[in-house]
Amino acid sequence: MKNKVITLGEILLRLSTPGFARFTQAGSFQALYAGSEANVAASLCHFGIPAAHITRFPDNDLGKAAVQTLRRYGVDTQHIVFGPGRMAIYFLENGSMQRASRVIYDRFDSAFAHIERGMIDWDKVFADATWFHWTGITPALSQGAADVCQDAIAAAHRKGLTVSGDINYRRNLWQYGKTAQDIMPALITGTDIVVAGITDMENCAGITGASFEEACRAFMRAFSQVKKITTTLRDSVSSSHNRLTGMVWNGQSLVSSQPYELTHIVDRVGGGDAYMAGLIYGLLTQKSDADAVEFATAASTLKHSIEGDVNLVTVEEVEALVKGENVGKLLR
Amino acid sequence: MKNKVITLGEILLRLSTPGFARFTQAGSFQALYAGSEANVAASLCHFGIPAAHITRFPDNDLGKAAVQTLRRYGVDTQHIVFGPGRMAIYFLENGSMQRASRVIYDRFDSAFAHIERGMIDWDKVFADATWFHWTGITPALSQGAADVCQDAIAAAHRKGLTVSGDINYRRNLWQYGKTAQDIMPALITGTDIVVAGITDMENCAGITGASFEEACRAFMRAFSQVKKITTTLRDSVSSSHNRLTGMVWNGQSLVSSQPYELTHIVDRVGGGDAYMAGLIYGLLTQKSDADAVEFATAASTLKHSIEGDVNLVTVEEVEALVKGENVGKLLR
Amino acid sequence: MKNKVITLGEILLRLSTPGFARFTQAGSFQALYAGSEANVAASLCHFGIPAAHITRFPDNDLGKAAVQTLRRYGVDTQHIVFGPGRMAIYFLENGSMQRASRVIYDRFDSAFAHIERGMIDWDKVFADATWFHWTGITPALSQGAADVCQDAIAAAHRKGLTVSGDINYRRNLWQYGKTAQDIMPALITGTDIVVAGITDMENCAGITGASFEEACRAFMRAFSQVKKITTTLRDSVSSSHNRLTGMVWNGQSLVSSQPYELTHIVDRVGGGDAYMAGLIYGLLTQKSDADAVEFATAASTLKHSIEGDVNLVTVEEVEALVKGENVGKLLR
Amino acid sequence: MKNKVITLGEILLRLSTPGFARFTQAGSFQALYAGSEANVAASLCHFGIPAAHITRFPDNDLGKAAVQTLRRYGVDTQHIVFGPGRMAIYFLENGSMQRASRVIYDRFDSAFAHIERGMIDWDKVFADATWFHWTGITPALSQGAADVCQDAIAAAHRKGLTVSGDINYRRNLWQYGKTAQDIMPALITGTDIVVAGITDMENCAGITGASFEEACRAFMRAFSQVKKITTTLRDSVSSSHNRLTGMVWNGQSLVSSQPYELTHIVDRVGGGDAYMAGLIYGLLTQKSDADAVEFATAASTLKHSIEGDVNLVTVEEVEALVKGENVGKLLR
Amino acid sequence: MKNKVITLGEILLRLSTPGFARFTQAGSFQALYAGSEANVAASLCHFGIPAAHITRFPDNDLGKAAVQTLRRYGVDTQHIVFGPGRMAIYFLENGSMQRASRVIYDRFDSAFAHIERGMIDWDKVFADATWFHWTGITPALSQGAADVCQDAIAAAHRKGLTVSGDINYRRNLWQYGKTAQDIMPALITGTDIVVAGITDMENCAGITGASFEEACRAFMRAFSQVKKITTTLRDSVSSSHNRLTGMVWNGQSLVSSQPYELTHIVDRVGGGDAYMAGLIYGLLTQKSDADAVEFATAASTLKHSIEGDVNLVTVEEVEALVKGENVGKLLR
Amino acid sequence: MKNKVITLGEILLRLSTPGFARFTQAGSFQALYAGSEANVAASLCHFGIPAAHITRFPDNDLGKAAVQTLRRYGVDTQHIVFGPGRMAIYFLENGSMQRASRVIYDRFDSAFAHIERGMIDWDKVFADATWFHWTGITPALSQGAADVCQDAIAAAHRKGLTVSGDINYRRNLWQYGKTAQDIMPALITGTDIVVAGITDMENCAGITGASFEEACRAFMRAFSQVKKITTTLRDSVSSSHNRLTGMVWNGQSLVSSQPYELTHIVDRVGGGDAYMAGLIYGLLTQKSDADAVEFATAASTLKHSIEGDVNLVTVEEVEALVKGENVGKLLR
Repeated sequence: MKNKVITLGEILLRLSTPGFARFTQAGSFQALYAGSEANVAASLCHFGIPAAHITRFPDNDLGKAAVQTLRRYGVDTQHIVFGPGRMAIYFLENGSMQRASRVIYDRFDSAFAHIERGMIDWDKVFADATWFHWTGITPALSQGAADVCQDAIAAAHRKGLTVSGDINYRRNLWQYGKTAQDIMPALITGTDIVVAGITDMENCAGITGASFEEACRAFMRAFSQVKKITTTLRDSVSSSHNRLTGMVWNGQSLVSSQPYELTHIVDRVGGGDAYMAGLIYGLLTQKSDADAVEFATAASTLKHSIEGDVNLVTVEEVEALVKGENVGKLLR
Repeated sequence: MKNKVITLGEILLRLSTPGFARFTQAGSFQALYAGSEANVAASLCHFGIPAAHITRFPDNDLGKAAVQTLRRYGVDTQHIVFGPGRMAIYFLENGSMQRASRVIYDRFDSAFAHIERGMIDWDKVFADATWFHWTGITPALSQGAADVCQDAIAAAHRKGLTVSGDINYRRNLWQYGKTAQDIMPALITGTDIVVAGITDMENCAGITGASFEEACRAFMRAFSQVKKITTTLRDSVSSSHNRLTGMVWNGQSLVSSQPYELTHIVDRVGGGDAYMAGLIYGLLTQKSDADAVEFATAASTLKHSIEGDVNLVTVEEVEALVKGENVGKLLR
Repeated sequence: MKNKVITLGEILLRLSTPGFARFTQAGSFQALYAGSEANVAASLCHFGIPAAHITRFPDNDLGKAAVQTLRRYGVDTQHIVFGPGRMAIYFLENGSMQRASRVIYDRFDSAFAHIERGMIDWDKVFADATWFHWTGITPALSQGAADVCQDAIAAAHRKGLTVSGDINYRRNLWQYGKTAQDIMPALITGTDIVVAGITDMENCAGITGASFEEACRAFMRAFSQVKKITTTLRDSVSSSHNRLTGMVWNGQSLVSSQPYELTHIVDRVGGGDAYMAGLIYGLLTQKSDADAVEFATAASTLKHSIEGDVNLVTVEEVEALVKGENVGKLLR
Repeated sequence: MKNKVITLGEILLRLSTPGFARFTQAGSFQALYAGSEANVAASLCHFGIPAAHITRFPDNDLGKAAVQTLRRYGVDTQHIVFGPGRMAIYFLENGSMQRASRVIYDRFDSAFAHIERGMIDWDKVFADATWFHWTGITPALSQGAADVCQDAIAAAHRKGLTVSGDINYRRNLWQYGKTAQDIMPALITGTDIVVAGITDMENCAGITGASFEEACRAFMRAFSQVKKITTTLRDSVSSSHNRLTGMVWNGQSLVSSQPYELTHIVDRVGGGDAYMAGLIYGLLTQKSDADAVEFATAASTLKHSIEGDVNLVTVEEVEALVKGENVGKLLR
Repeated sequence: MKNKVITLGEILLRLSTPGFARFTQAGSFQALYAGSEANVAASLCHFGIPAAHITRFPDNDLGKAAVQTLRRYGVDTQHIVFGPGRMAIYFLENGSMQRASRVIYDRFDSAFAHIERGMIDWDKVFADATWFHWTGITPALSQGAADVCQDAIAAAHRKGLTVSGDINYRRNLWQYGKTAQDIMPALITGTDIVVAGITDMENCAGITGASFEEACRAFMRAFSQVKKITTTLRDSVSSSHNRLTGMVWNGQSLVSSQPYELTHIVDRVGGGDAYMAGLIYGLLTQKSDADAVEFATAASTLKHSIEGDVNLVTVEEVEALVKGENVGKLLR
Repeated sequence: MKNKVITLGEILLRLSTPGFARFTQAGSFQALYAGSEANVAASLCHFGIPAAHITRFPDNDLGKAAVQTLRRYGVDTQHIVFGPGRMAIYFLENGSMQRASRVIYDRFDSAFAHIERGMIDWDKVFADATWFHWTGITPALSQGAADVCQDAIAAAHRKGLTVSGDINYRRNLWQYGKTAQDIMPALITGTDIVVAGITDMENCAGITGASFEEACRAFMRAFSQVKKITTTLRDSVSSSHNRLTGMVWNGQSLVSSQPYELTHIVDRVGGGDAYMAGLIYGLLTQKSDADAVEFATAASTLKHSIEGDVNLVTVEEVEALVKGENVGKLLR
């Protein structure tokens, strides 16, 4: 049965300071391995959807540890390749109240950035797959990564997979000589479901709009094969308290989820990936756009209560939250 | 002087995941020994009221560790018996925000469940006692435990003690062939102060009512020796934020405490036990119902700021909260 | 260039219970070295202002560890003296919600309390300095400490430094035979910028007023060389949630900062010191009173999100908060 | 290619006290999931040999966590079944010097003990397998477990797999009404490679001998299809210091490894499983008996330096130790 | 039944650096409450001998925590008194290999040092007691403590108790104006069993000898009521490796235990107290001197494998070591 | 007074697994900042010798944290430069017994590797200096680092400083197109005291010898200005147990220290740096070669008992070990 979701992207060693310690206070770092696309795969596995992640790891024990992490989540790692290079790293300092959270990236020259066309046999990868998910981080890392992403989208198209792409524009990447606007339009052209806010659309495709809906209309005019555009609205009252709403533009209407108050955030990293996994789950299981966006936003809400990047919750837990059941209870 | 409070019940090894980790994330568990009735005894000791707990422990180092925990709190452990069997366990996953807390019980076949009539010499236990407290958990565990509870209530009656019982109906217990309605009415018949919400009254005695007050009136008609019925109203805004109010029906009027906002819950397990200890303290020290319920609810409020099941606060701290003094201060 | 800020005062070993543990639950204590005046110096170093701290440490490894802590922050420790005596200690239990935080001081007979006139060469200390800061804790500890403080103020005056003093009246100090009113007026007489609330002014100088402004007017009539009086208004909703506003009376007008909601406090100790460091920074860099109090209050706000006594934030972070930028964001 | 090793057995939640703490000192327990046979499978995966483990887990989050642990090691978990019951547990107190290590088992009535004939489709399990490994713990737990073990051995025989069995006699199991001598002979009859010391042979098959070699000769006369008998000699100088030698009787000669000094043991649990995994690796890769026992004993030696039950070392590391290379070096 | 052992002495908060950290590296301290004499009481409770400890604690939460620690061990705390003063503290840095362990004492001016004649009702304390144990630390702390110790010995004598005293001379105490030779002889005069090495005998009573035996003979001539003198020989190969032998001079012969190799020391503090508790146990249970010293030395050996000051082992464990059973085993 | 020692070199973030965990087991890493040359500087500061370290850090919070670490040790950081680039990192897995320790370096493209001629004003750096120390790691990192090292040696020569260089040949560095033999001879030519073993001499200068002495004679013939060659002999019995001897060839004779048994190693990283710091201390304080090598080897021995790379011991502690005093004692 073709029901697997394939994700592509870099995985980083996340080194976060303990509690609310600043970088200069840290005598140790909590360590885990995560990446935007792999987070989606791992979350889908917790929803019962088989998923495989494609990446390239350094041929050392850090690469092995990262593979083990993915396997633990149930992610299929058989197509991962190994080779020279370093493990990408990011350092995380958790904010609190008015103090912002901060990330120091140390991802240049990673084993993944040295991925090249031909290292992955996409036809084999997609043999039992139904969905392919990529993000704008990959083409921003290196020409090789952009090429591999382009090949993957093309192969997915050939094989009849649904393709989703999270634009996720980050200004401090894109250092290999190309700009987002050089590369992204071709990738978006092969994509069915796009995650993008207004600024993403402007930065990656030069498309603007006075509102999300207007920008979506313009975006769909430019990329006519795109079927849905989705984003989350996040109101950061403080590092400890956010408000979250999910939105989907399906070409006809703008469908919004109920808003959630995230009043005691445990870990906000991966909130967007949790949303995307929820949306893919919803669409794969034939939910309506309205139900899918509710599921996705509830999933993302729960992620903010989970330590680490990955949304370790079940379908039952997300559906209970959508219905307002068991919220904050002690379930014996 | 007869002033000791006696409690009877199972004590479990509580194994809780660190911080907000899910069960599948836990590389270690915080460990402590606690149980609903023993929590009441320990809290009373912190209020200066002598208390002894009656239970049966496995004859191994986990049983010894549990005894040491009680002794640390000042609970008299001289009447505890030991024998074959296992330590009851519960696993706790702390929720946060919308995510519920979850408990996995692993308490069947415990040394306590194998307690039997005759293992405890109740006349000796009650020699210097003035109050006996039991909960509906005990008779739900095994026929032997139900028998011992029944014997204790009878002996307490004979000796002129005040008897309190926390109905605490839990559907997933009661697996030894009897139902709550088979067993509980006889136990309630020997009880002066009952802790019960509307659903407890229905599940354990088949008594219903459109409101707490109505249910209490019906309950007292059925169990005419019951002098007070008490409960707490808990509004779970989220796992991190609850609202709490205590209520006592004394046969004539419904007395309510001021409501408390619990906005940053540290540990909500044992909140009800802290309330009960506060109420026993209040009634033992001749407070009015109104003052007793204020004391009990303030005590329970403070418990939510304490790690573990036991309410490690003093009478002075509770009374200050009742008066609104020192709230949230830095006391140098 | 004369641009150094000099602070004088005792440094204590702070031993705080882990998480929200009560003193009786603590199997370990977090340890750091801090003191009101040294906190100001360390915070100023993080703002790029050179600062030296003057104190007296026991001639053992705890004294060495304290020196190393200061050096780590960038504080100049060359003028610190060593001798017999013990390290002052304070034990801290973090409150939560309604439960207050508590401090047990164990600071009597410390190496600093045995400081004596002549141990510090103030002319040398002040050679490249522009500001001297003291608090009311120092003269409260011993006659020797009061003498040294008096000498420092006199020398600072001679050298043309600005002098700031945080009255910080604490009733349970002052045990060496003198009262605050015996000692403080002479010290205040040499001080330009005074930190004092209404009760401080009453306790230390017998000056009262129906409002902060009125008390300030009276205080300035009594101490005519005082140029500014400042304080923070703190509303303790709970141990986890405070509200904070800074105020400066400059002789003509009362200037207030915007109020801040501190909704998830990480560590409130040192909040006042962070405020004072912010104010000194503001005044040293020629900000208006309005801008200085905004800077100081924003600095203090951020401190409440930092573990430990010292405000480990930069000028850029404080200024961003004043402008409402980056609040609660994830800065990649 | 048929190259998979299949293992069958119970997996327990191991709860060990931190450091050298006694049970009564433990405020937390380190937690991991392990079992003798699964340890063999996991070690083989680290040697590059595919392995699948067969067990039955409780249908709760502890069962899920155990599956995730196996997946992390690379063990194939697709054939594991789930159902009602509890997770087996063992508590471990690490000894030091003269003080012995101690285990409290809490494994009765586990989900695995409730396994029954027919729950596992052995023909499917063995489809791509070449080796089956069982231990004497399984038939000691329940009649159902003994039946399943018997079925597995029969099916393995049918499919032409090599069968290894670790007798591992434990007196305090065997509580379901059968003795080891009732059950074990039939299982040994289907086994090619037997792990047994002198006392195991006596307890499980009533076979005695003045020396290991003599006992082996008698054992092979009784069980003529057994091809090799192996054991390790362990000299416990103290909990911190053991000596270890491996031995194989192959019907003709007794082959011994070099002896190893284990002078600073980190964790000795799983030492025997590491030996068995090493021996299976050696025999599967066509090593001579002498080379296989050297590999196995070196593997077991390294295990004693690893935290947890599983031998997380590579073939390269074991082979280096056999050759005496890199011992105790700092490999940059 | 008169069978209780009474101990008298100061209890300190022990703050030890984690692992092998130096004082300057410690960001936290492990915390426990212990004292030489209380360690003896707690160890006896683990041997099944009832014991009560007499001390004076500060009237704050540190005093409460210390009481709770004693209660946990089973020590009777009913006679402990409370009052103003501070908790005595000692800081411990664990050595390793050639690096020595170091202690910083901070015990002057403690609540115990302020104990005074009349605060303890010795006749009541000794009502059900058979043995009184003191050490030379107590009279070294203050005149009040020396007086109380003298009173206790006198009362014990009156009541017919056996009195043991551990001379334990420490040069850096004795700062209140008296020397050991001023005070100790009178205390020794009331003591039956003396713990003293050669230097102790010289420092406290001016008695010398070329060997332990010779010194003992001289000591017994000077203090004719002394029945036994005991000591341990400790050979410190390194901080990690000691050798230990116990010796008793009973007036006629010198009885020595087997020597023990302590090759991987976990915590050597309290080793002498464990020895003393073992000796008291042995003599109380009518062992011969030879058996008592074997028991005591084996007990002390096991203590070195236990974290903390108190010897948390049972009689069964000590007796097994005396017989050489279970040494370094894994007891399932 | 010219008495400062200047060191030059890269500082890395050391991320070590907790306890004896393997890389794949690490859920956190202990973090500290260290580097061979800076370790020498920090150790010298603990010996009372002023020292400054020269390096280039990334202009982010990791660079700030590293500076703070050096300041904490007392190292003068005023000449450190900052700029773009990443923090060099190394991951450390502590071995135990036969299992080797392992390092994964991730240091390419660091801010230090991008150091260039002219970034450091050596005349200013050396203004108050008497000694300059470099290692062979620096020229192995990049052409810029080699140039800066060459400039430093030349300037030191000009200023009359003593120059020491630790050859420290590491094969897996030297990846920028030059070999050690291309670069090192010119650097050695300006060096007075050389740390080198036989293989270092061969790899860096092509000089061989049948013994250390022979190689030294040949080396001094080739580099006639070299005054002393020193090395340590390390016998790795296991990761937990090494033997260590220091040796100095001074042109006339080979002077060796007493050998040390390191039987319970806490942390062996930095052992060579501790030796070098000891030797510099000895030579700076006019010790004989024999005394200097004893001091250096004793210092290195103590380092193996200290967590982290830096030898946090005093001159008094080292001298006591040389004399065999206080070894393994408990110093109260």
